[in-house]
Amino acid sequence: MSDLLEPGHHRAAGLGDDGLWHALLQVERAWLLARSQSTGSLDAAIANGVPRPAPEAVENAGSPVVELVRILRSMVDDETAQVLHRGLTSQDVLDTALMLLAKDALGRADTYLTLTAAALAELARAHRETVMAGRTLTQYAVPVTFGLKVAQWLIGVLDARDAVRGVELPVQVGGAAGTRSLLGELTDVPDAVVDAFAAELGLQSALPWHTRRTPITRVADVMAEACAAAGVIAGNILFLGRPEVGEVREARSAGKGTSSTMPQKANPVLSVLVRSAALQVLSLVAHLHMCSGLAVDERPDGAWHAEWPAFTRVLTLGVTALSQTADLVGGLEVDADVMSHRAQEAAVELLAERGTGDDPAEYLGSATAFVDRVLERWDRG
Amino acid sequence: MSDLLEPGHHRAAGLGDDGLWHALLQVERAWLLARSQSTGSLDAAIANGVPRPAPEAVENAGSPVVELVRILRSMVDDETAQVLHRGLTSQDVLDTALMLLAKDALGRADTYLTLTAAALAELARAHRETVMAGRTLTQYAVPVTFGLKVAQWLIGVLDARDAVRGVELPVQVGGAAGTRSLLGELTDVPDAVVDAFAAELGLQSALPWHTRRTPITRVADVMAEACAAAGVIAGNILFLGRPEVGEVREARSAGKGTSSTMPQKANPVLSVLVRSAALQVLSLVAHLHMCSGLAVDERPDGAWHAEWPAFTRVLTLGVTALSQTADLVGGLEVDADVMSHRAQEAAVELLAERGTGDDPAEYLGSATAFVDRVLERWDRG
Amino acid sequence: MSDLLEPGHHRAAGLGDDGLWHALLQVERAWLLARSQSTGSLDAAIANGVPRPAPEAVENAGSPVVELVRILRSMVDDETAQVLHRGLTSQDVLDTALMLLAKDALGRADTYLTLTAAALAELARAHRETVMAGRTLTQYAVPVTFGLKVAQWLIGVLDARDAVRGVELPVQVGGAAGTRSLLGELTDVPDAVVDAFAAELGLQSALPWHTRRTPITRVADVMAEACAAAGVIAGNILFLGRPEVGEVREARSAGKGTSSTMPQKANPVLSVLVRSAALQVLSLVAHLHMCSGLAVDERPDGAWHAEWPAFTRVLTLGVTALSQTADLVGGLEVDADVMSHRAQEAAVELLAERGTGDDPAEYLGSATAFVDRVLERWDRG
Amino acid sequence: MSDLLEPGHHRAAGLGDDGLWHALLQVERAWLLARSQSTGSLDAAIANGVPRPAPEAVENAGSPVVELVRILRSMVDDETAQVLHRGLTSQDVLDTALMLLAKDALGRADTYLTLTAAALAELARAHRETVMAGRTLTQYAVPVTFGLKVAQWLIGVLDARDAVRGVELPVQVGGAAGTRSLLGELTDVPDAVVDAFAAELGLQSALPWHTRRTPITRVADVMAEACAAAGVIAGNILFLGRPEVGEVREARSAGKGTSSTMPQKANPVLSVLVRSAALQVLSLVAHLHMCSGLAVDERPDGAWHAEWPAFTRVLTLGVTALSQTADLVGGLEVDADVMSHRAQEAAVELLAERGTGDDPAEYLGSATAFVDRVLERWDRG
Repeated sequence: MSDLLEPGHHRAAGLGDDGLWHALLQVERAWLLARSQSTGSLDAAIANGVPRPAPEAVENAGSPVVELVRILRSMVDDETAQVLHRGLTSQDVLDTALMLLAKDALGRADTYLTLTAAALAELARAHRETVMAGRTLTQYAVPVTFGLKVAQWLIGVLDARDAVRGVELPVQVGGAAGTRSLLGELTDVPDAVVDAFAAELGLQSALPWHTRRTPITRVADVMAEACAAAGVIAGNILFLGRPEVGEVREARSAGKGTSSTMPQKANPVLSVLVRSAALQVLSLVAHLHMCSGLAVDERPDGAWHAEWPAFTRVLTLGVTALSQTADLVGGLEVDADVMSHRAQEAAVELLAERGTGDDPAEYLGSATAFVDRVLERWDRG
Repeated sequence: MSDLLEPGHHRAAGLGDDGLWHALLQVERAWLLARSQSTGSLDAAIANGVPRPAPEAVENAGSPVVELVRILRSMVDDETAQVLHRGLTSQDVLDTALMLLAKDALGRADTYLTLTAAALAELARAHRETVMAGRTLTQYAVPVTFGLKVAQWLIGVLDARDAVRGVELPVQVGGAAGTRSLLGELTDVPDAVVDAFAAELGLQSALPWHTRRTPITRVADVMAEACAAAGVIAGNILFLGRPEVGEVREARSAGKGTSSTMPQKANPVLSVLVRSAALQVLSLVAHLHMCSGLAVDERPDGAWHAEWPAFTRVLTLGVTALSQTADLVGGLEVDADVMSHRAQEAAVELLAERGTGDDPAEYLGSATAFVDRVLERWDRG
Repeated sequence: MSDLLEPGHHRAAGLGDDGLWHALLQVERAWLLARSQSTGSLDAAIANGVPRPAPEAVENAGSPVVELVRILRSMVDDETAQVLHRGLTSQDVLDTALMLLAKDALGRADTYLTLTAAALAELARAHRETVMAGRTLTQYAVPVTFGLKVAQWLIGVLDARDAVRGVELPVQVGGAAGTRSLLGELTDVPDAVVDAFAAELGLQSALPWHTRRTPITRVADVMAEACAAAGVIAGNILFLGRPEVGEVREARSAGKGTSSTMPQKANPVLSVLVRSAALQVLSLVAHLHMCSGLAVDERPDGAWHAEWPAFTRVLTLGVTALSQTADLVGGLEVDADVMSHRAQEAAVELLAERGTGDDPAEYLGSATAFVDRVLERWDRG
Repeated sequence: MSDLLEPGHHRAAGLGDDGLWHALLQVERAWLLARSQSTGSLDAAIANGVPRPAPEAVENAGSPVVELVRILRSMVDDETAQVLHRGLTSQDVLDTALMLLAKDALGRADTYLTLTAAALAELARAHRETVMAGRTLTQYAVPVTFGLKVAQWLIGVLDARDAVRGVELPVQVGGAAGTRSLLGELTDVPDAVVDAFAAELGLQSALPWHTRRTPITRVADVMAEACAAAGVIAGNILFLGRPEVGEVREARSAGKGTSSTMPQKANPVLSVLVRSAALQVLSLVAHLHMCSGLAVDERPDGAWHAEWPAFTRVLTLGVTALSQTADLVGGLEVDADVMSHRAQEAAVELLAERGTGDDPAEYLGSATAFVDRVLERWDRG
């Protein structure tokens, strides 16, 4: 992660290299437990701090796991060293660690989506009857309410939250080529070992998925869906907050959104960053689908490696953007007067479909009913 | 669709412009029914053939729907013309028609995935104990069975089929700006009209989703998942069918895979086309996610239009590729002798992890158990 | 191409299947000429109309060329049939035909970019001193001129035109595996034959590029650059033409931009379609780069086939969008009064950086000089 | 950058946050020089180490530049603080710093492409007459030479190098909204200041390009082209180095390519990583084209921000992959005997087009002449 070019990434703290290193250690530890081995020696090593491998060594091995195992074996007692990692392959450890990171990230995503939903529900309720101009293809259409607009955003957020909650996160245990070959030599109950491993990590037990990458793409898909929901919110706020429109305004706070040259400026920083994230996450998702479709053999020759940075970036970018969205929505300032005033001014256009009347508030169709229906869904939890 | 550059697209017949035109007419017809209007006059028009709009008129309107309505109104009786399309907006008709196309396409995808799964299950059963070299990062790893390799493909296909079956396909009824404004003028029971409309079309009733594009992206996601599963199969067959490997062979039939210059050639045409489709569908999916994140206002200013060709291409490409995959897998020729022979020749490498023995068949870990578990899932249906 | 879902594609007439079929025939014809064979018999066949191959036959062969050759051989005299296609492989014919299509498309792109540039130059000159609010991150920044804004668009268009003009379009002649094996049997001067072939088609002579796909990606890159330039123009016009802003307006004409439900609506159809095209072309370009990086052997196993629909779509979409852009810019209505009035109203914000004065027109920096510099470039031609 | 998930990224040292921070400082320093201000005070600050901004501050400002300027102003003398950054906007500093990074990265890319080309030229010369099986669509075609295969790779590398060398890297100086408004207040010769600024940094002087992003996309395009050339090489080596083929082998060295479980394994790590990079860079390039087409106003509301991580990742990934490619090609082991032996064994298939003879070496067409032509190009330099 870049401290300079990924503004807000501190919101995803613990999902970068530090978090991955921690997850890798937890995976090796859980394996010891699953193999009924004491973790005392490994815990001591972890407590002392396990040094990271040199970049050259990571490149030589093509992944961080070979070095991780070498370093750990040099730190633990002989009995532990004998059992450590035995029966696993590098991909087992790395894929499982990535699922742990995903679990963490999806949990946070859930939290931020819930915060966002709560704020949106409040806005929808408050502006249930706030009339504003509906706009399609950039032009005035018929009247809508700000409550309905927000309720639509809320559906997007709740749908994304459902999707986030529905993702399955399996451990990866296949051994060298997906048969659990060595594990079969080490135990008569390989399935029980894998079940214990999964239970220890809070992941699902599953058949190996070395070359079936749906656990990766489904996480990416739901993060994309969540970021699209956030991007839609941000894109709308950016437009409605333009000075020519002035219907909403991103909350201002000391120092936020200042310009390096213009003293009066208060840029809608969070909206801009959320929109930027929405644009970024989508190409990452495409990339992960591509890798999925290119898997061959019992472990792919590059398509697996190409997943790693994109997948972790999806997690950090998604969590960052959803956290920013919660703040953005939570602090949104709404100018209902400007909305109503504009709707009234544009009444001729907004009521052209109806062909009669001059009060936009009288031509809202099911807007209020829709708001109520979405709030009911929210209230049901 | 191109007759020249999309080999096999006749397998997706009915999902192109013809199918869309038919779907658009069905949507307008279902609306009449939902509004309790007789469809006799419209049915007569449809039976006579509704002329397609001129390209210039489609461009002028920015979508085919304005012209569709104009043409239909000129063909039906006055009473029908009064009710026809009233309460809908162009996006309602087009989005609903796209959902109808998606329903058709997903149904076919289900069929082809089932055919593929059946063929894979048969292969997995037949080769439950066929030993072959496992390969990771292009090099020999430990022994596997062809049955296991195929069982893994089968999981991918069954997971994709579950996903295909789980997609929700809602009608779109929002009116000019998502409030069902005009519909509210026309009836006291707008929800009932929408429910009847959805029931008539076999789609789900739902709140408007003009700027919440998950119905689009979720169809795309499952098609991508299905095509990735197919792409993995094709990629493996392409490698295993190379003359240096010779472990499988795409079925030959008269005239298939001939070269314009080399008389001996028998190209694995279906595998190549399926792999090509897997490569194509993924960037289309990314594109649809991008459009989803860019939706603004009550109808987006380009992000909606940019979905159309990509979405229909996902449908036709997906159905074509899945149909080809069913044929490919159904006709696959497997040379178990070559597999076993190679595994035996490479026994030293394949058994290096084990460090003992010289029979690859004795080091298969859970391979057979995994095959059985996958076949049980298939047998459960 | 879809008559219903690609509004405006008639602007790219001749770049679809018809154009490709014509190009394929021209390629086979040019090969006869290059081999010093009379084309009389082939010309007669072409004049009579060469029937298109059945979809099943195209799929069986994996490309349209095998069938094309079979059909042609059945239509021409024996002597011609002997020479026809001999020395070429399917990929030679198809890649060369795609380069012919690209030549046609880039020529049209050049024309439309020039028309657009001319209109932009006129606008820049006319509004050289039209003051308006500068906007960054959606908020008011410092004053700019509409002339400068347009001059920036003009640079984008001229840069894209330079790029379009700089693309090299080579014939493909490699024979079965890139060695011109059979051609070497047929003639002692294979290079001279290839030179004559290229000269006849107005393409460049070149070494085979079966698995080096830069001729494809470079066409795609310049089309993407042109469409991005167009997309920026359309995106700005869409914003500036919103009713809340009202600084520009897409030209209205009878029947254009009408709504299926709202009588007052005049949608900015061309802007929407151009923006939509800009969104679409970019993922197509990515796809082509992906295919390029996946080429293996002497002809790739799917990555080549996956190029075809994307490449032709880049051409048709690009030409359509650039034609629409020329119309859009040529008819743009500018309301300089609204611009100046707004700038004056926002003078406090627009002059905050300067910290003094109240006339935005006095704080334009190099705006006018920049306009003049860009117009000089345009005038130089 | 991730130390764990981007194996080999140490090869791109200096192109990450450290490099960017350095570049940002150089940009502010060059601006002082261009404004004829002494840099003594700033040089002292830089020598002492300029502390990086807190993540929260970067997020608040939406970019690192506001904080950079604040920190620097607090470290330099008053006179310098007065001039420092004055006339620039954040985007000027960041875009120019990104161009400096690009200059560094393209320079390194040039070096690695040259090293790769030299090694390929040597291979092509050595294997000018090494006959091997040509393969198309995975099946045997006609004979080729390994020299020709390598010569084709060499063309790709040289074309990419030409493209890398042809890219223009302009400074960005537009001020708040692209007019150089403040600079015009500070000097009568703004153009001369910009020229001096560019000269100091070794970049090109240019009109502002805040919303015309071709400098970004063109760097990305050439990096994509270089990575595609590298990806083609790696993809071919991965296939040819499979144990079933055995025609080439990635160089082995102590500890490289070891497995965490299989002692015999020697994985082709560099090939795998290069292929992985080729897969990754392409979606990043697509993303940058997308951002380019979405630019609006005088500075975009997210599309600019979304470029940053993708652009720097293109640079680090590209440099890493090209450095790895140079090593990969430089150490490639070729088994000409296996090639010839296989070609002889497959002579019937390989000579089927010719229809006569039994020596593949007699049916090489222009293979040798093509090698010579490519080597001439290389020798010309």
